[in-house]
This record gives sequence, C-alpha cells and structure tokens, in this order.
Amino acid sequence: MFSHNKRLQYTVRVSECNPGLANLMLEQFGGPQGELAAAMRYFTQAVGEDDPGRKDMLFDIATEELSHLEVIGTIVGMLNKGAKGQLAEAVETEAEMYRRITGAGNDSHVTQVLYGGGPPLINSAGVPWTAAYIDTIGEPTADLRSNIAAEARAKIVYERLIACTDDPGVKEALGFLMTREIAHQKSFEKALYSITPNFPPGKLPGMPEFTSVYFDMSKGDEMRGPWNQGPNWDYRSEPESQVAVDGGSGEPSVSLTADEQSAVDDMAVRTASDPSGDPPTGAELGMAADDPDAPADASASARKRK
Amino acid sequence: MFSHNKRLQYTVRVSECNPGLANLMLEQFGGPQGELAAAMRYFTQAVGEDDPGRKDMLFDIATEELSHLEVIGTIVGMLNKGAKGQLAEAVETEAEMYRRITGAGNDSHVTQVLYGGGPPLINSAGVPWTAAYIDTIGEPTADLRSNIAAEARAKIVYERLIACTDDPGVKEALGFLMTREIAHQKSFEKALYSITPNFPPGKLPGMPEFTSVYFDMSKGDEMRGPWNQGPNWDYRSEPESQVAVDGGSGEPSVSLTADEQSAVDDMAVRTASDPSGDPPTGAELGMAADDPDAPADASASARKRK
Amino acid sequence: MFSHNKRLQYTVRVSECNPGLANLMLEQFGGPQGELAAAMRYFTQAVGEDDPGRKDMLFDIATEELSHLEVIGTIVGMLNKGAKGQLAEAVETEAEMYRRITGAGNDSHVTQVLYGGGPPLINSAGVPWTAAYIDTIGEPTADLRSNIAAEARAKIVYERLIACTDDPGVKEALGFLMTREIAHQKSFEKALYSITPNFPPGKLPGMPEFTSVYFDMSKGDEMRGPWNQGPNWDYRSEPESQVAVDGGSGEPSVSLTADEQSAVDDMAVRTASDPSGDPPTGAELGMAADDPDAPADASASARKRK
Amino acid sequence: MFSHNKRLQYTVRVSECNPGLANLMLEQFGGPQGELAAAMRYFTQAVGEDDPGRKDMLFDIATEELSHLEVIGTIVGMLNKGAKGQLAEAVETEAEMYRRITGAGNDSHVTQVLYGGGPPLINSAGVPWTAAYIDTIGEPTADLRSNIAAEARAKIVYERLIACTDDPGVKEALGFLMTREIAHQKSFEKALYSITPNFPPGKLPGMPEFTSVYFDMSKGDEMRGPWNQGPNWDYRSEPESQVAVDGGSGEPSVSLTADEQSAVDDMAVRTASDPSGDPPTGAELGMAADDPDAPADASASARKRK
Amino acid sequence: MFSHNKRLQYTVRVSECNPGLANLMLEQFGGPQGELAAAMRYFTQAVGEDDPGRKDMLFDIATEELSHLEVIGTIVGMLNKGAKGQLAEAVETEAEMYRRITGAGNDSHVTQVLYGGGPPLINSAGVPWTAAYIDTIGEPTADLRSNIAAEARAKIVYERLIACTDDPGVKEALGFLMTREIAHQKSFEKALYSITPNFPPGKLPGMPEFTSVYFDMSKGDEMRGPWNQGPNWDYRSEPESQVAVDGGSGEPSVSLTADEQSAVDDMAVRTASDPSGDPPTGAELGMAADDPDAPADASASARKRK
Amino acid sequence: MFSHNKRLQYTVRVSECNPGLANLMLEQFGGPQGELAAAMRYFTQAVGEDDPGRKDMLFDIATEELSHLEVIGTIVGMLNKGAKGQLAEAVETEAEMYRRITGAGNDSHVTQVLYGGGPPLINSAGVPWTAAYIDTIGEPTADLRSNIAAEARAKIVYERLIACTDDPGVKEALGFLMTREIAHQKSFEKALYSITPNFPPGKLPGMPEFTSVYFDMSKGDEMRGPWNQGPNWDYRSEPESQVAVDGGSGEPSVSLTADEQSAVDDMAVRTASDPSGDPPTGAELGMAADDPDAPADASASARKRK
Repeated sequence: MFSHNKRLQYTVRVSECNPGLANLMLEQFGGPQGELAAAMRYFTQAVGEDDPGRKDMLFDIATEELSHLEVIGTIVGMLNKGAKGQLAEAVETEAEMYRRITGAGNDSHVTQVLYGGGPPLINSAGVPWTAAYIDTIGEPTADLRSNIAAEARAKIVYERLIACTDDPGVKEALGFLMTREIAHQKSFEKALYSITPNFPPGKLPGMPEFTSVYFDMSKGDEMRGPWNQGPNWDYRSEPESQVAVDGGSGEPSVSLTADEQSAVDDMAVRTASDPSGDPPTGAELGMAADDPDAPADASASARKRK
Repeated sequence: MFSHNKRLQYTVRVSECNPGLANLMLEQFGGPQGELAAAMRYFTQAVGEDDPGRKDMLFDIATEELSHLEVIGTIVGMLNKGAKGQLAEAVETEAEMYRRITGAGNDSHVTQVLYGGGPPLINSAGVPWTAAYIDTIGEPTADLRSNIAAEARAKIVYERLIACTDDPGVKEALGFLMTREIAHQKSFEKALYSITPNFPPGKLPGMPEFTSVYFDMSKGDEMRGPWNQGPNWDYRSEPESQVAVDGGSGEPSVSLTADEQSAVDDMAVRTASDPSGDPPTGAELGMAADDPDAPADASASARKRK
Repeated sequence: MFSHNKRLQYTVRVSECNPGLANLMLEQFGGPQGELAAAMRYFTQAVGEDDPGRKDMLFDIATEELSHLEVIGTIVGMLNKGAKGQLAEAVETEAEMYRRITGAGNDSHVTQVLYGGGPPLINSAGVPWTAAYIDTIGEPTADLRSNIAAEARAKIVYERLIACTDDPGVKEALGFLMTREIAHQKSFEKALYSITPNFPPGKLPGMPEFTSVYFDMSKGDEMRGPWNQGPNWDYRSEPESQVAVDGGSGEPSVSLTADEQSAVDDMAVRTASDPSGDPPTGAELGMAADDPDAPADASASARKRK
Repeated sequence: MFSHNKRLQYTVRVSECNPGLANLMLEQFGGPQGELAAAMRYFTQAVGEDDPGRKDMLFDIATEELSHLEVIGTIVGMLNKGAKGQLAEAVETEAEMYRRITGAGNDSHVTQVLYGGGPPLINSAGVPWTAAYIDTIGEPTADLRSNIAAEARAKIVYERLIACTDDPGVKEALGFLMTREIAHQKSFEKALYSITPNFPPGKLPGMPEFTSVYFDMSKGDEMRGPWNQGPNWDYRSEPESQVAVDGGSGEPSVSLTADEQSAVDDMAVRTASDPSGDPPTGAELGMAADDPDAPADASASARKRK
Repeated sequence: MFSHNKRLQYTVRVSECNPGLANLMLEQFGGPQGELAAAMRYFTQAVGEDDPGRKDMLFDIATEELSHLEVIGTIVGMLNKGAKGQLAEAVETEAEMYRRITGAGNDSHVTQVLYGGGPPLINSAGVPWTAAYIDTIGEPTADLRSNIAAEARAKIVYERLIACTDDPGVKEALGFLMTREIAHQKSFEKALYSITPNFPPGKLPGMPEFTSVYFDMSKGDEMRGPWNQGPNWDYRSEPESQVAVDGGSGEPSVSLTADEQSAVDDMAVRTASDPSGDPPTGAELGMAADDPDAPADASASARKRK
Repeated sequence: MFSHNKRLQYTVRVSECNPGLANLMLEQFGGPQGELAAAMRYFTQAVGEDDPGRKDMLFDIATEELSHLEVIGTIVGMLNKGAKGQLAEAVETEAEMYRRITGAGNDSHVTQVLYGGGPPLINSAGVPWTAAYIDTIGEPTADLRSNIAAEARAKIVYERLIACTDDPGVKEALGFLMTREIAHQKSFEKALYSITPNFPPGKLPGMPEFTSVYFDMSKGDEMRGPWNQGPNWDYRSEPESQVAVDGGSGEPSVSLTADEQSAVDDMAVRTASDPSGDPPTGAELGMAADDPDAPADASASARKRK
C-alpha cells in the first residue's frame, strides 16, 4: 500500500516561469526515459517478483521513482504556473496570447492549449506516454540488465537537461534526480551479480557452435576489437560462411496436406504475374505524351476516349 | 548499402502448417523484443556512430538481425502457408473456415483475416510494431548497456518459444536465433568495457552526497543485500531522512511577475472549491430514494420535476 | 513524496491459478478504465492544482488508486504464478506447454510468452497502456466531471469482472475495489458542486441564441424527452433551420494575397480532373475481357502488348 | 444512413492565411477533445443503444458533431490555403520556403511537409487521432456521465482557442462551436437524470462498509471539505486503519498444485539473488580507477586484461 | 540473407549542420511515407510471396529501400553532427544551449534532448514509427496497388523536402531518392498488369446490381464527370433511392433466444431514460442563480445545503 | 453539413447472436481497412480539395462510407445483442459467464468486458483505430492512387469475412458493402485519369539517369519480367554498379565549424571504444565457472568478493 507526504523528496525552487523550458522537462515526466517509465518498470517487477530481497529492493526504488515523478512534475508545474493562469483567465489581448503560446519555439503550445498548463504525461514532442516503453519480461537475469540500462539512459537525459538551464533551483533538483539514477544503477548491478550464474540469461544453453561466432556482414573499413577478435571469437568474413550456416540449402520448406496444396496451387494460378509480355499500365496511361517513357502505341485517341 | 541473398542464414524446415504456432512466433517478428526491434536499434546507432570500431560492429550486427528477421518471418510464412491459400480461395464451407480461423485459441484470426496469412509486423497480441520499442539515446555508455539488455530479453523470449513447439525444424531454427543473441551480448559487453571509464555513464559526475544513499521506502519484510548494505551504502530508513533531503521545506516555489500573479489569483477565486457547506450533488439527485446515502431533504417532488 | 507498506490495502486470496482469468483482470491493471489510469489522472491533477482542498483530495485519492493498482496487479500475479514457473523452467512437454498457453481462449498467451507471467501494463487484448486514456485538461469544472465519469466507468468494469469469476477471494477483493469507485465518485461530486457556479464550465459564456437549441438531425422515429422538449428547448427539425445558422451562405471564404492566389491557381490547373470525356483507366486495363464493365475498345492486342 | 449538404452548419470566414493558427485549431479536429472524438463517441453509443429516446438523441448529436468536424476542418483548410499552393507549386526560393515552414513556432511544419496543407486528423502536436480517446463502455449511467464530461472539456479547449485569435470570423465560428458543447451537455444531463436511480452506476451495490469511507492517504496540510467531512463520511487518517482493511494479513496467497509448486521452487532457486557477500559488478569494472566507489581490489591488471 | 557495404548507394555531401532541416528530413526516415515504411512493406510482402517473379522483385526493391533508409539517415546524422557533439560535451553556456535547442522553430529539440542528435525512427513531429503505416494484406492485386500508391506518396514528400533546402548536396541526394520512387512505381505497375484479370481485386465478383451505381449523397454544387456519368453509371440522386437499397425496411433485426431476450429486457427496464417529466440535473445545480437557464425552483436554500 | 436517416443503407438481418463472429466483423468497423478509415480518408480529402468535381465526388463517397460504418456497426451490435444483456444483468452463473466470454477463441472477451457488447472502434485484435491508418497527403495524383488501393484492400477483407459466415443476412450485407468498394474504386480511377498527365505524380521530374534503372539487389533465383526487362529498363546486377551511383566515394561528409569540430572531437575521445586489449566484462563476471567461455583468470575469489 502506498502513502504520500505532501513534502517533496527534494525542494523545488524555480526562479521564473518558462513554458519553453517546462516543455523540455516533460521528457523526464512523460517521456520514454522518464520517471513514470522508471516507476512502472520497477513496480510491475516488484509485484511479480518472488525473491524476497529483490522484491524489497524493487518496491523501494519504485516508490522513490514515484517520488521523483512528483519532483519533476512539480518543476513543470512551477515553470508553467504563470502561463496557466493567464490562459485560463484570458487577460491579455489575443495577439499577445498567440505570441506567447507559439513563441517558445518548441511544443509548449500543446501543454497550454490542450492541457491548460498542467503537467501532462507526454514527452517534449507531445507524444503520450505508453507502456510500450517498459521492457520488463519477467526473468530477473534479463530484467535487471534492462534496469541497469534504463538508469544509464535516464542519467544521460538529465545530463542534457542540466546543460540547457541556468535556473539554479531547477539545475540543483535535476542534479539530485540524475544522481539517484547512478545510485539505482549500482543497486541493480549488485542484485544482478548476486545471481550466479547470470550469463547467459535464462535457463537454456546456446548451441555451442554458434555462441562465439562473429559474422562480418558489413563490408568496408572493417575494424577489429575485443568484440570480434582474439581466441574467443570465430570471425567469419566470407559470405559463403555466413549463409545457410546449418549446412542446408537456405531454402524454406513445409509439408502441406493435399487440401492445403490444392488451395495454394489455385491461389498461385489466380494471382500469377506473367513474366512474359509487356502489359500497358496505369502509369503509362497517365504519362504526358512527350514523356520519354510513354509507350509508342499510346496514341492520343487511345489515351483519351470521349 | 545493403544487398540480399535469397538463401536464408539458417534453413527453415517446418513439419506442418500451424497458424496458432505462427501467431506465437510473431513475438520475435513484430514484437517488442523481436528482430525488427533489434535490427533497427543497431542500425540507427550505426548510422549515428562515429567511433570506427563500434560503427563497424553495429552495422555487422544490424545486418545479421535483418537476416534473422527474414528467418523468423519465413517460419511464420511457412506455418501459415496452407491457411493462406485456403482463405484466399475459400475452398471450404463457411463453418469450417470459421472454426479454423477462431480455433487456435489465440490471435491467429488477425493474421488470417487482416493480413491474409502473410507475416505482419505485429506481436502475438496483434499490436503493430512501434519505434517506441527502441531506446537508443545516442550516448554509447548508455546505448551499449541497452543493447546488452535487449539481447538478454530476446534470448529469453526465444527460450519460451522453444518450450512451446515440438516441430524439430522450428525448434532448431529458434535455437540458432537464440544462440546468436548470446554471441551479440558478448560483443556488446566487450565494446562497453573497451570504453574507460564507462560508469557513471555520460560526462557529469553525480552529487557525492547522494550517489551511495539507499532509501528504504517500502516498509515490511525489509531484506538487506549487497544492493543496500555494506560500507558502500548509506542506508536511510527513517521517513524523515527521506523527505526534503536537501534540507529545505519540501515545498515548491516560483517567482511570478505581477501580471502572472494577478491572473493566477483570478483563476484561484473563480475555481475555488468552497470547503464549507455540503452542496447537493448530481450523484445525490441520481440516488434511489431508499439509498442510505440519499440526503434527507431530497423529497420526491424535489427530485423529479414534472 | 510517496512511501510504501508491503501489506496490501486489501488482502488477496486466490483459490487456484488461472491465466485466462488473469488476462481478463488486466483490464483494471493496464486497461483504459483501470487503476493506473485512475492513479495518473488524479496524480497529474494534484500536481497541477493550487486549490488547497482539491489538491489534498486529489493526492489522497491518487495514492489510494496506486494502492489499488497494487491489489489488482497482485491478483494477476497470483493467478499466473503457477504458469510463470512452469514456463520459465519448461518442465512440461512442448505439446502440453503449447496447449496450456493457447488454451485459455483469450490473450493470456501474450502474458506468458512476452511477459513471463508477470503483470504487464496492457489491457485484456494486449494493448499497452497509453496516457491517451487520461483526459485531464487543467480546468477543475471540466476535470472533476471527467473524474466523476471515470469512476462510473471503472465501477462498471469491476461489476463485469465480478460476474465472471466464482473464486471467492478474487470476487471479494474486486468487490472492495468496485466499492471504492463509488466512494471516490461521491467525493468528486462534492468537490465539483463546491465550485459555484460550475456550469457552463470555464469562464466564457455561450452565444445565447444557441445555448438552448436542439437540432433534430437524425430523421425517423423521433422521440422527444426532457433532453429536447419543454420550454427550455428550441427544437429545430427543418433541415433549412439547421444549415448556415449564422444566416450566411454556408460557404467558406478566405482572403489570399496575390502570391498565394497565384500559387493556388497554378495548383488548380496542374491538378484539375477534367470532367469531360471518359478516360481509360487502370481498372479497365485490369478487367477480364468478358467483364461487362470492360470498355468496348479494349481489344486484346491493346490490352496486352508483347 | 447519412447524407450531406455542401453548405456548412456555420459559415466560415477567414481573414487571412495563418498556418501557425491552423496548427492550434487541429486540437479540435484531430485532438483528444475534438469533434471527431465527439462524433465517434456518440455514434458508437447510438449504434449500440436500444432505448429509443437516447438512441434518437445520440444520433442527433453525433450527426451535429460530424457537421462541426466539417466546420473546424474547413477553418484549418482556409488558414492553410495559401501555404498549400505555395508548397505544391514551389514558387518561392528554398530559403523562403524553409523560413515559412519552420517559422510559425509550432508544429505547422508537419501539416505542410507531410500533409500538404490539408486538414489531417492529428492534434496540435502532430499526434494521430486514436480511438483510445473514446471512453464509451456500453452502460448508459456511465456513458452519459462520460459525455457530460467530454462536452465540458471540449467547451474549455474552444475557450482557449478563442483567446488566441483576433480574426473575427474564426472567433465567431469557434464561439458557435463552443456554445453547442454547452447545449449538448444540457441534453446529456437531462438524459442521465431521466434514468432513476442512476447512482451508483450499473447494477451491483457497493459493500456498505466501504462506500462512505475516506482514506486520508496524503499527509501534510490536510484540508477538510464536503468531499471528506460531515456525517456521511467515515474519515480514516491513521495508517493502520488504511491497510489490510479486510482485517486480514495484507499478504497475498494462492494455492498451487504440486507441479506448479515444484516449478515455482525451481525458478526461485535458479534465479535467487544471494543477499550475502558483495559481488563485483559490471559498474565497478567500468569505474575510473580514482572513483571513490571503485573497489579496492580492482587493480589495474585485473581491470584490463591484455 | 542481407549483407552490407559501408559505402552508401548515393554519396551524401552536406554543406553545414542544420538541426532544423534535419528534423524535416525525419519524415522520410521514420515518417509514414518514409523509407522504413517502404522497406518493411516490400520485405514483408516478399517473405509472404510465392510467385517467383514478384518475390524476386519485392526483395530487390525492399533491399534498395533499406539502402535508401541509410542514405536519408546519414543526411540526418550529418545535419545534426555538430549539435550532437556540443550537447554531449556541454561546451556552451546553458543560455546558448537553450537557445540553440529551441531556436529551430520545429521539433528538433526532441532529436537533441531525447535522442542525442542521432537519427531516430520518428517523423518530423516526433511521433514514433509504427507498423500501422504498412497496409499489406497478403493479396497481390491489392498489395501492388498499395505499393503504387505508396511510391506516389513518397515521391511527393521528397518533392516538398527538395523545395525547402538550398544545400546542393542534400538537394541532389533527395533528388536521387525521389527519382527511385518513380522507377519503383513503374515496376509495381508492370507487375500488377501482368496479373490478368486484376480487377476487381481478389476472387469474388460484386453484386451486379450495385457495381455501377453512384450515390449522390452530398447535395449542392453537384458536378458530374467520368466518375459518375456516362452509360456505365447508374446515378442515384433521390434520397429514397439511396436508403435501404435492398428493398427492406432499413431496420436491423436479430433473433434472440429466450434467455437472451429476457436479459435484454431486464437491461432495457433498468436503464430506461424516462422521456416524460423534466428531472433536475447536475448542470442545473451548478448554474449561477442568475443564469437564464436556471430552473425557477432552484432556491438558494435548495442549492446550497449547509 | 451532415444529416442522418435512421433507416440503414442496407437492411441488416442477423440470424442469431455470435460474439465471436462479431469480433471478426470489427476489422471493417475499427480496423485499418475498415469503414471509418475510408470515411475519414475521403472526408479529409474533400475538406481540403478545391477542384469542384473531385470535391463533390469525395463528399459523396465519404458520406456513403459513413453510412457503411453504420451498417457494419449495426451487424456487430446485433451479433452481440444477447451477450450484452446477459453481461449487464449477470443472469448466469459465473462459470457460465466465464466460459461464454472466453469461449469464442478470439478477442470477443474485449468487446464484452471493456465495451459492454457495444461496437467499439477497434480491430479484431482489440487495437484501437488510429489516424495513422490514413495516408492522405494533399496531392491528388497521389491521394487518388491511395484511394484506389484502399478500396482494393477493403474489398479483399470483405471477401474474407464473407468466407467465414453462413448467416445469410450477414453474408448478404457484407456482399453489398464489398460491391460498393468495387464501384468506388472505379470512380477514383476515373478521377485520376481525368488529370493529365498524372505520372510521375506531383510537379518535379525525376533525374533522367535513374528513372528507368532497375537494381538487382537480391541474389539467387533472379527472374525477369516486364517490371525489370525490355528496352525501357537499364538492369544493373553488378554490385559495383549499385553502390555510390553518383560516382562519388559513397562516404558521407559535412563541414563543421571549429567549435563543432572541437566538441565532436571531445566526444570521440571520451567515448572511444579501445580496440586493443580484451577487457573483462560483466558477462564474464556472470558466467558459471565451468562455462567454456569463462576467462581463465576469473578465479573464484576474484569473482565473489565477501
């Protein structure tokens, strides 16, 4: 069960309203790398988790991320506070309002016109948050790696936001939020490496003949490194060594029943594109008479029938 | 530039048609952990990458994932091949067709009715693939971790699919695809650890006072582990140690201009919910006369005006 | 700031695992009328709200909805618990697994294959949750009405779920969740009617000549009722009384600059569809020779050029 | 069956082209609170409705909303008309075109480049319209409340758009559309209160012990009002009175079969995170040697193996 | 199987960085008419196709479209290259950074803040690519027409982009990409007309009495043309000739079982909106006392109960 | 302006309720090839169109498609009518209800539980309709081709639905709807070919050196046909003839300012993956001791630090 304290986890002090900056901040409110994504990622894992230590950790961090969602949402709200009132009460002339709403040079008009200056669960482009951002799959050796990566990404987006504002209060709060992603990544790393073994993830081993093969499939300026060289790697550069690596034909096959085969054959006949001939086409009907590609026999009378 | 060889990277041999199984396979064709997501993840990173070694590796693996997309799509196509012909040519009675289309117990009806038995870029629920599945953000210390996690997830989904089919040809091809995720994870790990340092990701350091704090925000059955105990962690369990950790009030603030303040005040007055009194509500109007919550003064005549 | 207690708000007692039932329950976890939608609806309103009474109420109810999200997610988790283990450890034969995964007759295969039996933020069709479900716009006389409606909808979906299960523990927990929607609706009603006036919502009055007009635009079986009859309504049934009600021509106009007009004219000439004549078309090229619609002059030689 | 009259319901007179203003107007064409959402909301309810009075009303209003969709779309078209021609015929220099297309300061570039100046079914951020905006659930005591709320929201968005333009013809047409939302809300209110009782919505009663409880779950600055005080409310502020309110343990339970239990146990063992010890992690491998968090035993030789 | 050559199909030479222009280019990278949509459209058709000629052609063109995706993505990358470095290294003041990121006047801030300057699979509004853009349905007489149309659309969007830039290298590469859409359309036309007959698409004939009827359902300014006049068309303008054209009542019917009928009747009674009377409504409760629509019997005491 | 007649365009006679069949029908109600997509496609084109003949035709057909949306929605409603009542009134035992709701073998449970048996704007997989299905771009030579293709697709999906039902009334109404797609395609073809020239679409010509080139980029089983052979095609099969076809290097370039170059260089240094060496990785830390890939120096003590 959750409970709430109206004091924030980190005090938000905003120097002045700035809807354009608010719009950028939305990336960490309703964006793919933002705090709702983080909170829901760990919350759903926590609910589904049976390991007592991980379950505890996941609920701890999910709860903190919800608290961060509140901090970043409050920053958005403070940056929009003036504009919210001015729009709702319509105290300016229309021309001033239009300039203010479209003047920030980004998508802050959406926050104003559609959301009335409140903090919406969209990213800085106005795209609504979707659970498609969450990549939890219910296996801890995968999910903990996903969490590690998610914290790394969120850290970077905060870094970019910090680089865009000189409001000291906003900068400081963002710094706190960024720092916590570092701490969370460390916890998830510890939890992952407390599972032994954790690689390969899951239960099934790989096919030994393919676990250490590297296929050099992009030609030109090949560059070798530890990711494809050394005794652990079987580096295959020849195209023939990359195709049909099972030793078969590389052609698919399936057994059909007689009924299936018959229907498939019927469809093949009905829909065959005859490779012989050169049928006139709709494009040719539509070409200008002097188009070099226009067919010779496309006389004017043939091409416009009155 | 890409080129294509009509032979598959791994020969696909399907024993018999099975649209229900085909539907499950769609998870790795058009699903969030599937091959299109993998191919596009690495391809977009490759295009944006300037480090020559990583760029080469990313193009190599992106190209292989496209080849895997073709393998899994071909499995889907083979499993649907009979049904595709039968639907297109409508050779059965309607009742047989209806049973066949709805009988698999999953979403294979969508593949039949909407996509005609071809391999659509949807997952096994029928949800179209979206680039929201791709979490590339353009910083290698984050993106390589995302790639590591993505390979781990894809490995697990293949493992689950392998557990659902006893068709030996399908099982073998899935085993190959699963194995390659292991190999790719290894390459991405090597590339990540070839960047030094790579933690914390990005350029900005964290605020030292918060990088090693663990907030115990979920109470009951606390369990300690390396993710929150030991000399490296400052474990904070008291609620007061978790709120307003900057030492401030925990209350947000912003400076408003006089015009902004005036508009905000106007809005506050206009929209105030008066906490005194007990106004009759629409819900009360709608209650049955004998509802225990119905207000006493809601006489029949007051509640239906004729 | 949020905190969490590992005890649930309502104890969840599930009699036996049932992934098919779990799939239906997802409607209230990650569905449009579910608990995440409720929690995020009220949370975002709370963050943006300045009225102290409403802000307090919105945080109270948002926090409770998060606690409900945990309850319904836990129900999903318990109903899937057995299947989760069996899938992860693959202890059955493939045929058994396939039957179990596709046998529920709904979308539970998605929860198994893609999410490993955990509680995903999707609805019962497998569609990921989206913030497009949230209709908050930042004006309390509208948002409180939206909240009232949302509680009504959620109440109904619980009612339907209750009708589908005879597991007493599940039924009881759903009954609790359903009941709380009733209580929340009552609170939101009180808060709305504490704003006076609250209708029309917002600040601008309507144009008096149109606020009480009812346009009877669907003909046949007209039925009058308080929604369109009585002294308060101006009922307009004649088509002429419904069109161009401003008294104008009903035709749009705009002033163009000379440059704009010139470009528009150029485009009109370039893209004009000539209404005279009867041009041969691609469809006619593609008709069978014996199609009654095939043009007479479409001789075989004209229609296949070799 | 529908029919159409080419005269608009309200004459649209636009003073001059303005693609930036057109972009804002898209909120009511293809946005969540716009006319397509309204029309489809009522149309789908009308088709599914059996009550003759409501069915008639829903078709009437759905048809009017389609007519409003045409009015707002025509406004968009007129505001874009000049730009449409200029883009299609490319009569300006590229630099002029680029400035014009990116100069409006909002998302009008999308309407130009992708949609050629026509009225697309997107909102002002460029997000395509989705039926996820429609919250119809097929129970009139809920759906009518949803309709009431939807009309309130649409009224407000029109109010905001009116505040942004001083084009008298646009302002007047928006005023008409806004006014009609008021009239529609009145009709839906009458239809709702013609159902008795209509609260609680649906058929099932709530659990009496929880219909009038208010959980004070957000602490700090509590403020009481009719939404949580008075004789009708049981106000519960103590955390212990909010958790496991059924009197149980607050811990979830499920009965597993022996096979299920065995698989669950296997998974628990395989994936346990060992809480003892302090395993080295990938993050530690990636730390700079002088990072204060770097483990002491991570000697240079251990951390780079050549 | 795919392979890759690091040389591009067309050399990309960009004069100078311009993130705003890069943002427009995204339409053809991750937009609905862009190269990923084209590549995936033809690739999925190729995998599902059995006709050897079409399969070969579809793989050829799909592969070329992937190569075009690389070209347009590389243009985006080059145009963003400077901004990418500046953001990652944060070498400017915050004010400069903010101005640069929001100054382009379109959605380039999303590419910077969220994607770090890499080429993301979004369109110029920031909307992620979705497979909903692909309209393949698995029947060649439909799919080839869809491909023809898709090439036409892509050609136009390139035309618009060419009109917006005077960078000669960008212009030239766009010209190449545009030209290839023309060539592809020609190939698809030839393949379509090689199927005989190809109209009507599919297998079933239409009902002869309705294949040549034109319903004039929009009144005012009727204009006739070859699309609705001439001997081939049966033009029906009278409303009575358009409704219930089967000669029936135009009213739907279904047979219900006794149990179904009984439940339907119960629902009808429970949810009936009583058309008699004039019930007071929530809107009336919320009206100002001096609102002309306020009911007379709504005395102050009735409307605020204290 | 639209008006509505409560009689349907085609009388719907359903023999018996069948929610499973209703679910399949949703493809043409809220699916990508369905009637809403058609209506909105033509309606938005009509609003944006200036050519009087096309505008008239587009409004005529858009209006008819809305009427078809009503017919197919009514079929869905009739097929669900019994189930709707039974769910709302909950007259069966829970076990019966559960079986009925999950027994259809497709997604009809979504229509029941979430939408209460009404006709929702989803497809047969439960995916909400999205305007991303509409490909209108505002240029008639492209849009008319898109319309032709859309009609062809819709015709095919109706054909498939007809093959799945033996209810004579449903079959007949579907036959009517299918037939109208044929008639509409014919009208759009006539309108397209009334524009001369209409190929290439748009205004800009292609680069002559590339309009007739065919790149044979998929190797194996090449098959020639009119789409790539004959005097009109320049068939290029050699890989060298396909790469960098402009004669350049195939390598991208951009001019950077000094500041940009400096930042790019800094980023390159900071994020370089060192290709020398063989760094230990997280995956190696996670390997089982007996994993053949585990590094030799990963002694037990090194790998678990206590």
